[in-house]
Amino acid sequence: MMYAPAISLGVNLRLLAEGPQVGAARVIRDVVVGDYNDEATVCEFAAGCDVITFDHEHVPTRILRGLVADGKLVRPGPDALQHAQDKLLMRQRLTRALDAPAPTWRHCLDPAGLRAFGDEIGWPIIAKASRGGYDGHGVWKLAGPTDCERPFTESKDASAGEPVEIIGEEFVDFAREMSVLIVRSPSGQAVSYPVSETIQLDGVCRETVTPAPGLSDAQASEIARLGLDIADELQVVGMLAVELMQRRDGRVVINELAMRPHNTGHWTIDGAHTSQFENHLRAVLDLPLGDPRARDPWCVMVNVLGGDVDDLTGELLHCFARDPRLRVEFYGKQLRPGRKVGHVVCYGDDLDQVRNRARHAAGHLMGQIKEGR
Amino acid sequence: MMYAPAISLGVNLRLLAEGPQVGAARVIRDVVVGDYNDEATVCEFAAGCDVITFDHEHVPTRILRGLVADGKLVRPGPDALQHAQDKLLMRQRLTRALDAPAPTWRHCLDPAGLRAFGDEIGWPIIAKASRGGYDGHGVWKLAGPTDCERPFTESKDASAGEPVEIIGEEFVDFAREMSVLIVRSPSGQAVSYPVSETIQLDGVCRETVTPAPGLSDAQASEIARLGLDIADELQVVGMLAVELMQRRDGRVVINELAMRPHNTGHWTIDGAHTSQFENHLRAVLDLPLGDPRARDPWCVMVNVLGGDVDDLTGELLHCFARDPRLRVEFYGKQLRPGRKVGHVVCYGDDLDQVRNRARHAAGHLMGQIKEGR
Repeated sequence: MMYAPAISLGVNLRLLAEGPQVGAARVIRDVVVGDYNDEATVCEFAAGCDVITFDHEHVPTRILRGLVADGKLVRPGPDALQHAQDKLLMRQRLTRALDAPAPTWRHCLDPAGLRAFGDEIGWPIIAKASRGGYDGHGVWKLAGPTDCERPFTESKDASAGEPVEIIGEEFVDFAREMSVLIVRSPSGQAVSYPVSETIQLDGVCRETVTPAPGLSDAQASEIARLGLDIADELQVVGMLAVELMQRRDGRVVINELAMRPHNTGHWTIDGAHTSQFENHLRAVLDLPLGDPRARDPWCVMVNVLGGDVDDLTGELLHCFARDPRLRVEFYGKQLRPGRKVGHVVCYGDDLDQVRNRARHAAGHLMGQIKEGR
Repeated sequence: MMYAPAISLGVNLRLLAEGPQVGAARVIRDVVVGDYNDEATVCEFAAGCDVITFDHEHVPTRILRGLVADGKLVRPGPDALQHAQDKLLMRQRLTRALDAPAPTWRHCLDPAGLRAFGDEIGWPIIAKASRGGYDGHGVWKLAGPTDCERPFTESKDASAGEPVEIIGEEFVDFAREMSVLIVRSPSGQAVSYPVSETIQLDGVCRETVTPAPGLSDAQASEIARLGLDIADELQVVGMLAVELMQRRDGRVVINELAMRPHNTGHWTIDGAHTSQFENHLRAVLDLPLGDPRARDPWCVMVNVLGGDVDDLTGELLHCFARDPRLRVEFYGKQLRPGRKVGHVVCYGDDLDQVRNRARHAAGHLMGQIKEGR
């Protein structure tokens, strides 16, 4: 999705892809296939680029530090990026530097430490692996002291050798989840997108509503301020997504950070004056940032997960006939069940209508709605 | 510009490009380089495609007829497309079948015929080559009887061997030019975009304003009806642009037809619910068409012509700092003076502001405005 604005702005985008069949590699003209965990591969790739950026945070920090030492522009830089790669580092830095709102948390060195943390603050608790989590992986909800071995054993299996720490966190019985997207350029210009409400199921984002319904202007400003402060503190370049949980008393705490165009910002392609993908590129190139505001009162994005639909494009026959303003984005991925393979966006004046339109289309594309075929 | 919606909709777009350095060939993944005038090249290319479409009308009709005879889907088909390739055929068909409004015109077989036509309706007159015209080429304004050889000799030089006829046309001292864009699918669904005012200079489109200022609803409907009737009469599939001249008494006459996404529809990328490029694809794939309406009260597009600016992307520093809502599209073309190398779009509530923003940005990108650099 970064490719379209790259073409529009006259930017040559070169991709380092994990394999020739990944979505981006099937559409981008200039593709190198290789392993981003291999230093030589990344260095050789980077040699032909003016600036390096990412659509995930998994490139090892030591490789990125090597690029920076060689004088390459890496944006976001490894000093910033590690706070999206390492949840422990993120909690430590944001708590110490900004006293940023967080669930009660503790770095737990072993199962006994995790048990002690749970006994102290009350069960259930959440355990998180510091590294390698994605879409609910690397997060455990622990009902009581007997489960405390699991995060340590399971995270080690998934870590591919990198050291993984375990963080104990208060289980926040949140009223809802939200996210705020910030984009920041190397020269320090930064803007905030409107705050979105995000709906997750089994750790996977299913839907966003922008702006977050019922959020007061004061709360929205406070959340934007928090996001801008984090972007500035960490010297982020490009997109920063701050995932938030809102407690039942209205206060928000930070859940996670991402430093890249983010699923909760996909609505911006059709719903904002400047998409997160274009603004990420503009930031990375140190061009002035585009207006992040919404073009319509409400914008809803619903993810399309792989289901029992084989031909997504064919299913558009129904979706487009039903809704001439429906916006659709497919990712060109293999259709594995439960995998995010696309999204739909609707915008308009009436939230209920907008949400119903988006949910219907996504449901149909997931094979969950059979009428009208 | 068709590539971005193709990616979004999960459509594999394969390009037959004239050369490896044309704009589209530099960004599209699946490119075959070859001559669209060569039957074997086109047939071999078409063999791997489910549907064939175009971004210009220059593929010879006989090659397209061959593809159709082989059972390929060609959209728009040659029977429709020839009316955009051959201005004489267009005038004949639209006059006979629809009595569509046109300047007074006549098929002139030789200079003497052209002279007689001019003497009859009064000088100056316009002469047009039936084929091969583009951006003002193939059109002559003749002040008097002495110039009547020129169209015949000059058109022969430019025709590359295809037979070229000369049409004499009344010189319409128009109040303004306009265009209406229609998109039509094989199943007959068709929609009209809002009518645009278009500003041409030396035969090259420089600017569009949508909707055309001061056009009454009744006139706009009448023009949309005319466009829809033409699309239906010619059985167009995909985009149809009907270029119009408005006489000083308010009546419109048809100037030319194009059957492809058209320069006067570039505003739709940012300004309409569904861009002309997406709707062209949807039509060609026989998917239901998207909403063609404008998202804002006013939308202005200004073309960027190659000038003394070498690095367009670098010049965005000024443009984006000045206007965070500016939309920019570069075409990846070599920057020859006078060549269309991109466009800018602005939209909003106040036409004067919107137009000034767009003109300033385009002027800056053409090297005509030096302040603020």
